Amino acid sequence: MPDRTDVQDSKSCAEYYGPYPKYDPVPTTKLADGNGASSTTDYRDVGTPDEWVTRDGEMVRLTGRHPFNSEPPLSLLKKYAFITPTHLHIVRNHGAVPKLKWEAHTLLVGGPLSPKPYEISMDALASMPSLEFPITLSCCGNRRKEINMIKQTIGFNWGAAGVGTNVWKGVAVRELLLKAGITDKDITDGTKHVEFVGFEDLPNKVGPGPFEDEVWGKHVKYGTSIPLGRAMSPQFDVMVAYEANGEKLLPDHGFPCRLIIPGYIGGRMIKWLKEIRVLKHESKNHYHYHDNKILPPTVDAERALKEGWWYRQEYILNELSLNSVIAQPNHNDTLPIARSINSLIEIGGYAHTGGGRPVVRVEISLDQGETWLTTELNRKERPNPYGMYWCWVWWAISIPVAALVGCKEIWCRAWDSSQAPQPIKPTWTLMGQHANHVFRVKVHTRENESGEHFFWFEHPTQPGQLRGGWAERIVEKYDSAGYGRIDYASQ
Amino acid sequence: MPDRTDVQDSKSCAEYYGPYPKYDPVPTTKLADGNGASSTTDYRDVGTPDEWVTRDGEMVRLTGRHPFNSEPPLSLLKKYAFITPTHLHIVRNHGAVPKLKWEAHTLLVGGPLSPKPYEISMDALASMPSLEFPITLSCCGNRRKEINMIKQTIGFNWGAAGVGTNVWKGVAVRELLLKAGITDKDITDGTKHVEFVGFEDLPNKVGPGPFEDEVWGKHVKYGTSIPLGRAMSPQFDVMVAYEANGEKLLPDHGFPCRLIIPGYIGGRMIKWLKEIRVLKHESKNHYHYHDNKILPPTVDAERALKEGWWYRQEYILNELSLNSVIAQPNHNDTLPIARSINSLIEIGGYAHTGGGRPVVRVEISLDQGETWLTTELNRKERPNPYGMYWCWVWWAISIPVAALVGCKEIWCRAWDSSQAPQPIKPTWTLMGQHANHVFRVKVHTRENESGEHFFWFEHPTQPGQLRGGWAERIVEKYDSAGYGRIDYASQ
Repeated sequence: MPDRTDVQDSKSCAEYYGPYPKYDPVPTTKLADGNGASSTTDYRDVGTPDEWVTRDGEMVRLTGRHPFNSEPPLSLLKKYAFITPTHLHIVRNHGAVPKLKWEAHTLLVGGPLSPKPYEISMDALASMPSLEFPITLSCCGNRRKEINMIKQTIGFNWGAAGVGTNVWKGVAVRELLLKAGITDKDITDGTKHVEFVGFEDLPNKVGPGPFEDEVWGKHVKYGTSIPLGRAMSPQFDVMVAYEANGEKLLPDHGFPCRLIIPGYIGGRMIKWLKEIRVLKHESKNHYHYHDNKILPPTVDAERALKEGWWYRQEYILNELSLNSVIAQPNHNDTLPIARSINSLIEIGGYAHTGGGRPVVRVEISLDQGETWLTTELNRKERPNPYGMYWCWVWWAISIPVAALVGCKEIWCRAWDSSQAPQPIKPTWTLMGQHANHVFRVKVHTRENESGEHFFWFEHPTQPGQLRGGWAERIVEKYDSAGYGRIDYASQ
Repeated sequence: MPDRTDVQDSKSCAEYYGPYPKYDPVPTTKLADGNGASSTTDYRDVGTPDEWVTRDGEMVRLTGRHPFNSEPPLSLLKKYAFITPTHLHIVRNHGAVPKLKWEAHTLLVGGPLSPKPYEISMDALASMPSLEFPITLSCCGNRRKEINMIKQTIGFNWGAAGVGTNVWKGVAVRELLLKAGITDKDITDGTKHVEFVGFEDLPNKVGPGPFEDEVWGKHVKYGTSIPLGRAMSPQFDVMVAYEANGEKLLPDHGFPCRLIIPGYIGGRMIKWLKEIRVLKHESKNHYHYHDNKILPPTVDAERALKEGWWYRQEYILNELSLNSVIAQPNHNDTLPIARSINSLIEIGGYAHTGGGRPVVRVEISLDQGETWLTTELNRKERPNPYGMYWCWVWWAISIPVAALVGCKEIWCRAWDSSQAPQPIKPTWTLMGQHANHVFRVKVHTRENESGEHFFWFEHPTQPGQLRGGWAERIVEKYDSAGYGRIDYASQ
């Protein structure tokens, strides 16, 4: 693990990590019917509120045409490795993209406990002292399709590329709160929280909610809160970002500004940020409760609502979990056996975790977990001055092709600095979040028409509605995923 | 999870958690030969440098008579639950206990980068503003005997009670460093570390070491370092403690003062603390490198030394890992089947983790991991103002005795707030540390002389050289522990 002692600390973020990848979004299929949409419009956005948004045509759409929820092809994620081009960065939208203007947008900072609440323009925000550093942002639904293939959850089908790393630039929330008259003394009673609220109006999914003093209306904002101490502590690097990879944010990523909470799940990093409020209590926002929860496997949708499971604090999901994925070989890759048996094959992929912990080790297993080989980590990240790590590593190992003879599956798993490994088996939960069980690529032997034998590699799933992957076959499924033996026949 | 909003924050630590358990050490077997030792001397300490130390006779000695390394019986740990009496708190000594006096001991604070290094007496230290809160302290070797039963490591046999919780009182390291002229600005380049060094003189295990500017002599001090940012940040609560459970420290726990790093392994919390030094680099102390490492399973003692594995930063062990243990039923407990089949049995134990994360869920499984039942958590702890948790929870669940019919093993596992579970299987490593795989209690059916059938519960091991536990039987052992199939016959 590098340590600031090992790196040239005088370098700015841009010097250290730059130049950031330049990337022009791949032109989407041009509109065939000539209805006047510009050429940067994806034909799938025509007639939706997002028609004005420029998007990359290669992004895999996971929830139909609208709203836009998408991940890049795993091969592109691997191609760019440490820093993901902004147009290939995952997007999780709950509704239409708000059409905001830099000049018109303001941020309201303070809330009821602030002695000096204020409104700040984007220009004023961008002229404040800034932070800039890379973080890995993952939807906690990443790899959910593997869980949905066991039994359907209430969440949609993320593949294994629901994650990306951008270099974010913005203003520390600490600085913004100090300006509102909040001080370190406000932390000491430990009761205060900071609520962050976005601009969107979203449908209320469940009715008025349980809070008498904050009844949820027909439309609700997207919001969440974190303890004031977390927001004010320099080592957690919580910030309001207005640039990614050296450019203004894309509309899909929260233009003109969004919250960044390094080490947290993407779902808490409010986009199109409008308000920062210091409160005497945790947020009572609809989405703070009705999203991002890990309930016990036996709790289904009906029980969850009826028994109030959404409001139990211990099931909230904030910290990103430890995860790793094999990107090479990719799904459907092949390798001729006779011609390559004396050479090496590279196995590689990404690994990340949350909470500021570094990934310290990534291993692969060719014998379904009996033995593990340690891979090489490519860790581009320098930690922050407090020793916190916010980014993924890309790992790789070269093994003899001959080692794949008799190998049924290639597994990978990561370990974090508390020496915790990923779990071997998945645990099904209602929302299907934090699917971080060991990633398994099957190795099949096939023969082509010329009689040549080759390895065919098969990933567990393909994202969204794409078909393919061994998890589709009932015989390959897990017997149990934490809630009892599964009767697939009855599903 | 409680949050400071839910607790009465005006209460002091002593009001909130007190009264602390009072406990007189159980008189050890009196000295039979009347050689003049006082009656509080354990006969096993006679003739050792620790003869003057008062100890509890019930503590299980793990490394022979001397040095003193011990854990309490698991039943006593459970009896006191949240706060462990000081005399029953685990002890890990590398050598003789230094015979220090409150009046004579001083702490040297500052080191080479301090503009105002100083020496402080214990009276002066105790008159500074103080912190007081409970933390769970565990040797990272806790449960190592389970690993040693797979294949011998270089570490000794901790059972499952190498852990305890005391309420520690002391001075924040931040305050001590501020007084030495260190400021928050010193953190920003991210290169500085704080080294903590103890009073002991310990044998050098490996020779001069790899650092030309700091050659290890015949005797070395016990020391370690953490990043300056971690030491200076209020939310990590790093402190120099001089009281435990409301009383001065016991000699075995570092009298007159020791380092407390909440969320870290016990091995980094230097006892008999003598020096605090701000350095330009990580500590070059012998024990910082040659202790508390998790190497890959394939690295044995010879390779570790020859290939320099001890000096690779990514294998250092600092954060405590997620763990849980069943304390009830205890090893060798029995239960008559016919007479109790219509009643309930309580299954219970402890669970903890590191890094400030709370344990959010503890589950048991009666079918070897196919399904899991959620237990009730008894979480006495209020988090610190930054939302950090430093203590264990005690968990329990009542199940019908009838559910044990056909049950071969009772398993438990904890989940932390990043929704990480403990691993199912152990991973063997050279030092056998962080044994945190699922804890398994076997349920046997036996018949007594009167023909009455009863359940007999069997834990995996008993601590130290005590015999008993299913892990002693070859047929019960794991096929693999991360380094290949084990050929037990050849061992």
